[in-house]
Amino acid sequence: MPPAADPPLTTTPTQDDLKRVAAYHAVDLVQSGMVLGLGTGSTAVHALDRIGDLIRRGTLRDIVGIPTSTKTEAHARSVGIPLSDLDVHPVVDLSIDGADEVDPHLNLIKGRGGSLLREKMIEGASKRFVVIVDETKMVNLLGGSGMAVPVEVIPFCSKYTMSNLRTLFSGIPGFHLRLRTTPGDEMTPAVTDNLNHVIDLFFEDGITSDLDAISDAILKIVGVVEHGMFLGMATSVIVAGKDGGVTEINRMGVRRIISG
Amino acid sequence: MPPAADPPLTTTPTQDDLKRVAAYHAVDLVQSGMVLGLGTGSTAVHALDRIGDLIRRGTLRDIVGIPTSTKTEAHARSVGIPLSDLDVHPVVDLSIDGADEVDPHLNLIKGRGGSLLREKMIEGASKRFVVIVDETKMVNLLGGSGMAVPVEVIPFCSKYTMSNLRTLFSGIPGFHLRLRTTPGDEMTPAVTDNLNHVIDLFFEDGITSDLDAISDAILKIVGVVEHGMFLGMATSVIVAGKDGGVTEINRMGVRRIISG
Repeated sequence: MPPAADPPLTTTPTQDDLKRVAAYHAVDLVQSGMVLGLGTGSTAVHALDRIGDLIRRGTLRDIVGIPTSTKTEAHARSVGIPLSDLDVHPVVDLSIDGADEVDPHLNLIKGRGGSLLREKMIEGASKRFVVIVDETKMVNLLGGSGMAVPVEVIPFCSKYTMSNLRTLFSGIPGFHLRLRTTPGDEMTPAVTDNLNHVIDLFFEDGITSDLDAISDAILKIVGVVEHGMFLGMATSVIVAGKDGGVTEINRMGVRRIISG
Repeated sequence: MPPAADPPLTTTPTQDDLKRVAAYHAVDLVQSGMVLGLGTGSTAVHALDRIGDLIRRGTLRDIVGIPTSTKTEAHARSVGIPLSDLDVHPVVDLSIDGADEVDPHLNLIKGRGGSLLREKMIEGASKRFVVIVDETKMVNLLGGSGMAVPVEVIPFCSKYTMSNLRTLFSGIPGFHLRLRTTPGDEMTPAVTDNLNHVIDLFFEDGITSDLDAISDAILKIVGVVEHGMFLGMATSVIVAGKDGGVTEINRMGVRRIISG
């Protein structure tokens, strides 16, 4: 497969331009016959469009996509990507998805879009998981850019679950949390693809404690289904910078300049 | 409150007689003004009936019940127990519930009835959690009586979650698992109060590994909501024996003969 031509950029690239650049470079890794995890969100959608385009041109054949959300399922179908699920294809060759934050060890915060459980399941089943971001998503500490760590919870007694989460982090300065509500309706909880609710955790100064310990403690709370910290899952991240440069960083912290 | 008169027993008590004896003794612990966690199942229903009876007689006043299932909610309402939930009453004075198995350290298997998540949430919020069983439920090792450890899972890609559970326990002789189906319909998954599915784990020789480690490993699997091992939660167990004796065992293993 020939390398992707970079999409045309205006002289000052917008954030969306950068997302598209990162996405196109990730799609360079796709080969015919692969089972692909299809991410969710504004960056991942560029990857879907590109994959659909390459399938239509005949450059990619025998692709099977596993969508990480109902939204991605609809979009992937509209651009002509054949779809399946993990029950039929329990091993995924490559997943491509965006992230809300990426730390230097490639730990991620994901799930602002509300599909963190399906993303985690599919990306956890992947031999290779490539994250695509513009440079604003790179942080030193998770939570440090003000992004929420989303926690998916069973709707039953979710206020009580929320109080348990509050207690767990009560000693941390700058911590607060809130039940995610439907955009434009502060009284109605947002609902995930699995019909659950989301409690957003905010760590103003970033998370300085051991991430694995925090992950375990959250998962032990009864009523918690999953959280949006993706620890040790990404195999590499492709970062598009404002200066036009594109870099791939692997788990060992090795940086490879792809272009620019 | 006067101690409960034991319900009349025939010369050879049935298992249901024993369940009722244990339940009535637990209800002796209820005092007016308490917030009560109301268990689910064939043993707990005797406690509900008894509490309703004492409320009707005026012996118990200002009781608030927190039901652990929709079934218990309906039954408690029918016998006149005023109801609320954990969002309104986050601290429960006393929970009374049955169990499928109880080991010598008062670790439990629960959830054959499909309401393990609500039970765990409410019983975990209780200052005191009294388990009521007939003597057949006492085991040396959890799983040893052939009872399943139920795992509540998100319906999305539950076959994949099942394969992850199978892999986790693949080294254990006598282990098998199956998706719980609706009684009388082997093709339709059973659905919990939270609209999730249940995968039943069977350990033919009982669970010999560290229970806390197994609990953590199960909860870490993406798609798992909760499991039916209740570790370190019960404060005491009231056991009714076939010989008519009733014993209370506390966390320290101390046995107190209540009657018989």
